[in-house]
Amino acid sequence: MLDGIEQITIVGTGLLGTSLALALKEAGYSGSIVGHGRRQETLEKAMAVGGFDRVTTDVAAAYGGESDDGQQLVIVAIPVGAFAATFEAIAQHAKQGTMVTDVGSTKSNIQRLADELLPVGVHFVGSHPMAGSEQQGPEHAEAGLFKSRPCIVTPTEAHDGAALEMVTELWQGVGMKVLTMSPNEHDRQTAAISHLPHLVATVLVDVANDLGGWDIASTGFRDTTRLASSNPKMRADIIMENREHLIEAARCFIEKIEAFVDHLEEVQNSDSVSDDEALNLLIEQQLAALKERREKWSGQFG
Amino acid sequence: MLDGIEQITIVGTGLLGTSLALALKEAGYSGSIVGHGRRQETLEKAMAVGGFDRVTTDVAAAYGGESDDGQQLVIVAIPVGAFAATFEAIAQHAKQGTMVTDVGSTKSNIQRLADELLPVGVHFVGSHPMAGSEQQGPEHAEAGLFKSRPCIVTPTEAHDGAALEMVTELWQGVGMKVLTMSPNEHDRQTAAISHLPHLVATVLVDVANDLGGWDIASTGFRDTTRLASSNPKMRADIIMENREHLIEAARCFIEKIEAFVDHLEEVQNSDSVSDDEALNLLIEQQLAALKERREKWSGQFG
Repeated sequence: MLDGIEQITIVGTGLLGTSLALALKEAGYSGSIVGHGRRQETLEKAMAVGGFDRVTTDVAAAYGGESDDGQQLVIVAIPVGAFAATFEAIAQHAKQGTMVTDVGSTKSNIQRLADELLPVGVHFVGSHPMAGSEQQGPEHAEAGLFKSRPCIVTPTEAHDGAALEMVTELWQGVGMKVLTMSPNEHDRQTAAISHLPHLVATVLVDVANDLGGWDIASTGFRDTTRLASSNPKMRADIIMENREHLIEAARCFIEKIEAFVDHLEEVQNSDSVSDDEALNLLIEQQLAALKERREKWSGQFG
Repeated sequence: MLDGIEQITIVGTGLLGTSLALALKEAGYSGSIVGHGRRQETLEKAMAVGGFDRVTTDVAAAYGGESDDGQQLVIVAIPVGAFAATFEAIAQHAKQGTMVTDVGSTKSNIQRLADELLPVGVHFVGSHPMAGSEQQGPEHAEAGLFKSRPCIVTPTEAHDGAALEMVTELWQGVGMKVLTMSPNEHDRQTAAISHLPHLVATVLVDVANDLGGWDIASTGFRDTTRLASSNPKMRADIIMENREHLIEAARCFIEKIEAFVDHLEEVQNSDSVSDDEALNLLIEQQLAALKERREKWSGQFG
């Protein structure tokens, strides 16, 4: 796989970066996989996990490559708030023709930085592999993390065709289903199905904290709030970067839940048995329709 | 276990009722376990699963018992909207001294019906085993469903001491951690940690339906919305029965998420980098505190 790519540099050797190194080895990539990061300790842990051929804190060594003629692919796997410095380093050290992608959870902002900071001849196409865990660090890396999960690749109108092809091959190679959309459309959709659920999970924990119930909380609460145990720094960055779309999705959510509660309160105050029965039936129908909608998806999702 | 109880009648042989029959056998209960329900087909399926000694649609046979002197325990495992008819049947057929409990997800309303419909000498103490599944039907029953999960037992001031003891022994016998609180306190707390998460999961599906993103939804969305695939009829009944507390919990939730989004929008409109940085840090701190709160719980929950 990825014929012609002599070296893959993964910037950031956390859970995602290290899992990707393992997955690439498992998929049979035969070039060199280099891990680059700032903390020697994390790099050593990642090296011990087994996917990387070498790791380095040195910027020139990370992007310089082993020979002059082989092509390079750089995959940036760091928190979305830290891209500027990395793109500047790539701009300074990467060879002409280097292809760059990333694993960030927001795309418009990263694309804007790439347009601004990467030189002509270094080709960026953004990616967002929808795989992860609330656990962190290379020690939790898994080769199978990406398998059967969706990956969104976000070319702009000005994208490089060869880079798009290579990035698509990369994610398909580790078992992902690749979808293509613009950075803005990506951010709009992920606000609805990822960033809003993260926010909602956290607010549910906050409500339980105020109203009590910890002793009796069970598996339903555990699953609904699982995302509240994700990395706070990474999530704060994502919320800030994608706030425009998150605000839109959250307003839609608030409007719906408020309408539901208002209706419930209205009937609560009416004391009419037939109003009660009508609302009970309406709620059942609404719940049934949304259960069906979810299962249409989850059946395909597997 | 449950010495002196000659017969246990489980009313309703769905997932919970049948799982309980299996769990009682596994725990070594040596009396007779009778399954009672209205639909012959469900009863036969439950019988095939293996926990019941016999099943019957006949009310007199269900509550009459096999001899005149043995004591009986009745466990009502039907949707919360259907209790009145069952309590009336118990009142008509059960022997003096019969103990009654249930597995309903709301407690004040069921207690009110018990007070109203059960005769003196038939002793009701409500229960809510916090175990379940979005799957339904006896064919999905599991003996281990209750293991290590919390069960809330809800005696009133007028409760019968022997019945409370027996009901506690029942749930501990199938591996549950028993907590005791009033029906009203139960309903207040479950609104926060169960009924609100159910509602929120459903509204998230509704938002995804409006804004799109199904093709890229992944494990985070799956877990956060899992409860939206629960039984619509049962949930509609629970929402209606516990609406007073659900309205309170949902208002608390709406207030919190709205305050968060308002703040985000304010900073979005301010265009000040230092406001941005301050909010980013504040959000990170809030997320970190709630992550910690959740993990304090999930560590104990296991």
